[in-house]
Amino acid sequence: MSEEKKVDEMMLRHSMAHVLAKALTKIYPEVKLTIGPAIDNGFYYDVDVDKQIAVEDFEKIEKMMNEIICSNQDFTRKEVSKAEALELFKDNEYKTELINELPEGEVISIYYLGEDFVDLCRGPHVENTKYLRSFAYKIDKVNGAYWRGNEKNKMLQRVYCLGFANKNDLKDYVKRVAEALLRDHNKLGRELELFTTVDYIGQGLPILLPKGAKIVQQLQRFVEDEEERRGWMLTKTPLMAKSDLYKISGHWDHYKDGMFVLGDEEKDKEVFALRPMTCPFQYQAYLNRTRSYKDLPLRYDETSTLFRNEASGEMHGLIRVRQFTISEGHLMCTPEQLEEEFKSCLELAIYMLKTLGLYEDASYRFSKWDENNREKYIGTKEQWDEAQDKMEKILKDLEVPYVEGIGEAAFYGPKLDIQIKNVWGKEDTLITIQIDQMLAEKFGMEYVDRDGKKKNPYIIHRTSIGCYERTLAYLIEKYAGAFPTWLAPTQVKVLTINETHENYAKEIEKDFIKAGIRVDLDLRNETISKKIKEATKEKVPYVLIIGDKEVAENKVSVRVRGVGDTGAVDLAEFKDRVLSEIANKTLNV
Amino acid sequence: MSEEKKVDEMMLRHSMAHVLAKALTKIYPEVKLTIGPAIDNGFYYDVDVDKQIAVEDFEKIEKMMNEIICSNQDFTRKEVSKAEALELFKDNEYKTELINELPEGEVISIYYLGEDFVDLCRGPHVENTKYLRSFAYKIDKVNGAYWRGNEKNKMLQRVYCLGFANKNDLKDYVKRVAEALLRDHNKLGRELELFTTVDYIGQGLPILLPKGAKIVQQLQRFVEDEEERRGWMLTKTPLMAKSDLYKISGHWDHYKDGMFVLGDEEKDKEVFALRPMTCPFQYQAYLNRTRSYKDLPLRYDETSTLFRNEASGEMHGLIRVRQFTISEGHLMCTPEQLEEEFKSCLELAIYMLKTLGLYEDASYRFSKWDENNREKYIGTKEQWDEAQDKMEKILKDLEVPYVEGIGEAAFYGPKLDIQIKNVWGKEDTLITIQIDQMLAEKFGMEYVDRDGKKKNPYIIHRTSIGCYERTLAYLIEKYAGAFPTWLAPTQVKVLTINETHENYAKEIEKDFIKAGIRVDLDLRNETISKKIKEATKEKVPYVLIIGDKEVAENKVSVRVRGVGDTGAVDLAEFKDRVLSEIANKTLNV
Repeated sequence: MSEEKKVDEMMLRHSMAHVLAKALTKIYPEVKLTIGPAIDNGFYYDVDVDKQIAVEDFEKIEKMMNEIICSNQDFTRKEVSKAEALELFKDNEYKTELINELPEGEVISIYYLGEDFVDLCRGPHVENTKYLRSFAYKIDKVNGAYWRGNEKNKMLQRVYCLGFANKNDLKDYVKRVAEALLRDHNKLGRELELFTTVDYIGQGLPILLPKGAKIVQQLQRFVEDEEERRGWMLTKTPLMAKSDLYKISGHWDHYKDGMFVLGDEEKDKEVFALRPMTCPFQYQAYLNRTRSYKDLPLRYDETSTLFRNEASGEMHGLIRVRQFTISEGHLMCTPEQLEEEFKSCLELAIYMLKTLGLYEDASYRFSKWDENNREKYIGTKEQWDEAQDKMEKILKDLEVPYVEGIGEAAFYGPKLDIQIKNVWGKEDTLITIQIDQMLAEKFGMEYVDRDGKKKNPYIIHRTSIGCYERTLAYLIEKYAGAFPTWLAPTQVKVLTINETHENYAKEIEKDFIKAGIRVDLDLRNETISKKIKEATKEKVPYVLIIGDKEVAENKVSVRVRGVGDTGAVDLAEFKDRVLSEIANKTLNV
Repeated sequence: MSEEKKVDEMMLRHSMAHVLAKALTKIYPEVKLTIGPAIDNGFYYDVDVDKQIAVEDFEKIEKMMNEIICSNQDFTRKEVSKAEALELFKDNEYKTELINELPEGEVISIYYLGEDFVDLCRGPHVENTKYLRSFAYKIDKVNGAYWRGNEKNKMLQRVYCLGFANKNDLKDYVKRVAEALLRDHNKLGRELELFTTVDYIGQGLPILLPKGAKIVQQLQRFVEDEEERRGWMLTKTPLMAKSDLYKISGHWDHYKDGMFVLGDEEKDKEVFALRPMTCPFQYQAYLNRTRSYKDLPLRYDETSTLFRNEASGEMHGLIRVRQFTISEGHLMCTPEQLEEEFKSCLELAIYMLKTLGLYEDASYRFSKWDENNREKYIGTKEQWDEAQDKMEKILKDLEVPYVEGIGEAAFYGPKLDIQIKNVWGKEDTLITIQIDQMLAEKFGMEYVDRDGKKKNPYIIHRTSIGCYERTLAYLIEKYAGAFPTWLAPTQVKVLTINETHENYAKEIEKDFIKAGIRVDLDLRNETISKKIKEATKEKVPYVLIIGDKEVAENKVSVRVRGVGDTGAVDLAEFKDRVLSEIANKTLNV
């Protein structure tokens, strides 16, 4: 959409917010209006009204909005003094609060809609509601929202309206939402019983149910084994430490707000904090003996659980959480080894993305420091320039098609972030590779170089797959829950036509479990069509139907996910097919 | 040792403590004595003296003790009033504190040793130091110790003396200690670079270095796979929750002191706590849909990290820690299924113990509640009687040779604890299986029974291998670091005689890594005997020597751990041997 058209649409939406507000005052005379902006897919208005606005009320409100539009009412701007504005809105403590915050002498504008409705507003608006006639809108939902977003304030009702310049745009939007919802991990992941959340445990603390835990287990083993093959050594370090550690690393000064702290510095002898990253823990493996240049590079990885004290409003399904597990690695090397090792970290990440089928969806961001915000970082300008120059050279050599992100660096160094978008278009970091020339010195990490001198190694901080919860989320959305066979929680489901086929089904189960195939039986006394329907809903890659013929011929009738019935094959042949898909991590069945 | 002889020895040790105290007052005239008891291997005295008592001072102190003993001094008991005692020890604030705590009117005894030394003491003692002449003693070490064990008090010096009735007993003891030290996981585990600890991270928070992490990874995969084969489903649940959860489970009332709490109930809206167990988290998998009797038993397991806020003094290596990971499982079943399922849990635990070679070292404790301490438990006497009766019947049916532990139950039910001792003879729980008929009700866990009625399932809480840190500790001690091949961090070490053998060694490495054998190369320019010596110290199961002959004939010369050189064999034959040991989890190479 052109920039101009977008501005127009935002003005239409904003005008519609006044229409909504006026309609609400007609239906709920005691309502107190607060604020009502235009947003990406329409507009909303936060209102204070005792009666809960329910889905059943939506039609009535929409009808009233329509009446207002069809009666060709004028939007009229008027400028008033602060005193006049205060007098006009004296019965509304919210508007009064807003007006009081305006600087003395500032021009205050109000907008009339018709003659009997006025709202405090900067504008602009359409001149008359007749220009809203072709605008397409629909009340979407009503949520609770604290006044000014502060949970200490009163909870208001936020009335959301979808709103687009015309019917087709609205229809397109609704269709896109419906499609996204079919893939949305936060919905589908719960339906497929991959995960759940529970109020009394807390937000951002997802519970992986057996099917979700199975996928994560498979991912973790794959990552640990692949990393071992590439020369990484696994560590297992504590999830918490005394504040002393974070004071050395700089996290206490630069990251404390994002950490869960246990104890009170003023009262307790020892204060602990849950770790938000693995770095200073893993460094202890390096520090466990003296190192020479011959030992470098040293590569440590860990399947590491981390904790971040995110604000409640920022939680989202498996993507933004308070606790997550990640394959975090730290590599210590000499300056001469830096480029080669950075490259190997990037190759590892790309290999992982390709294996998972997410490679095409990734983009790259070179996250730099913000020179104008130096208190956020440790180190000197010279150190930052050096690290960023090195990284830029490496990225150019490797022809990584990156964009720059100023102010997105870690507090100790620049990063290459591999970004990915969810079904709603929101982008997050999946994988990160960072260059750090500062923390080694802080922790006294040294190596004896060829010249006999002690030097601090460069450290590459890297993840290789992204945190498992977030990766699972993107996999759910990418495959709409129809996971590649090697990751599918159930790989094969065996359905019997009647109880005479049970023994054969159980033999298959035993044989498959022994071979390492995840198999489920459905021996229930239900019709085969009902059983097939349910197995299809579970998105199992292969469904086997067992009847008289199959038992007699030692065969299985195979239904392939997304394809349907593909006929009967020998049991051994089918088994080989599945085992080969698992071994090769085939993306499509 | 007979009970009587033991009492005698304790009296001798206690008398010796006075000899030590008198010697210290001779050498450090300003010393303030506090308390000095007899202990299992001798005696100690806690003293307040500014000068640090150093190893160099031990001989002088021992000489002084010997002089006292050889001068045939009398131990003389005298009874005094509280006022007299206070007057006598008025310069010693520690003794004064102790005397003040004695009830009014109680007889206070003091003991003179010779005429110039007196100590507050209950006795009894030998009559004269001549009876200590054959007593064998040796100052062992001086540690810091807070007065009365409270870290808010002054740190004193605790002078430890080994002391036995005769020289042979002391010699035997020193020998036993030397042998235990060779196996002590807290010493050997660090030497073998399996783990370390770091002051600024904190006590009870061990860091598993690559070799230790590799063993734990192998154990975890073994346990997860074996449990899956036996019908357990893996979950992965959060490591923390809001206090709300623990209030339902009862942990907030019955276990809060043992938990790490995040936040302050009076100040913060949400208070979280790190989990000390998995139960209420894993229950959410059960609660995720309605359940029928047909779904039971349902078995959930998890490789679960837990946190316990242990006191600093209780930490010990990998055995008593603040954070640990355990295979924790919960099984929901009907009353009719309880015995069978309990049995299967016990069989699983025994299978694990046997596979690890720890079965012979285990003993069993039936841990019951303490009726006289009811506030420690939830539930009624009837519920406890029922659960304990059921458990007793099961244990008798299974012929488990248990001892009873009154007051050792969980707050929600009785336990079968599988106990094991470390090299120092200290016993701890490795595995536990518990019966719980209370928590299901608290969490609203139900199933629809055959009769259509909703009922609460029985829950079996169980571990199958013991926490991985503790299990690793016992394995280190059991095998003195010479782990079975399948667990050994490095399974094969390849040593080259000179650089012409490098290529062959590298080919072996590549081939072995592909086959899943953990292999290390030693290509250094060192003598083969030095390389062998170092590999032997690392306790690698197999060391391969590569020279001209081996390269020419595609063979390897094999040194077997604990055996030595076993000659040259074909590479393929050797590889098969190692792979078969790994697959079969053979205990001895």
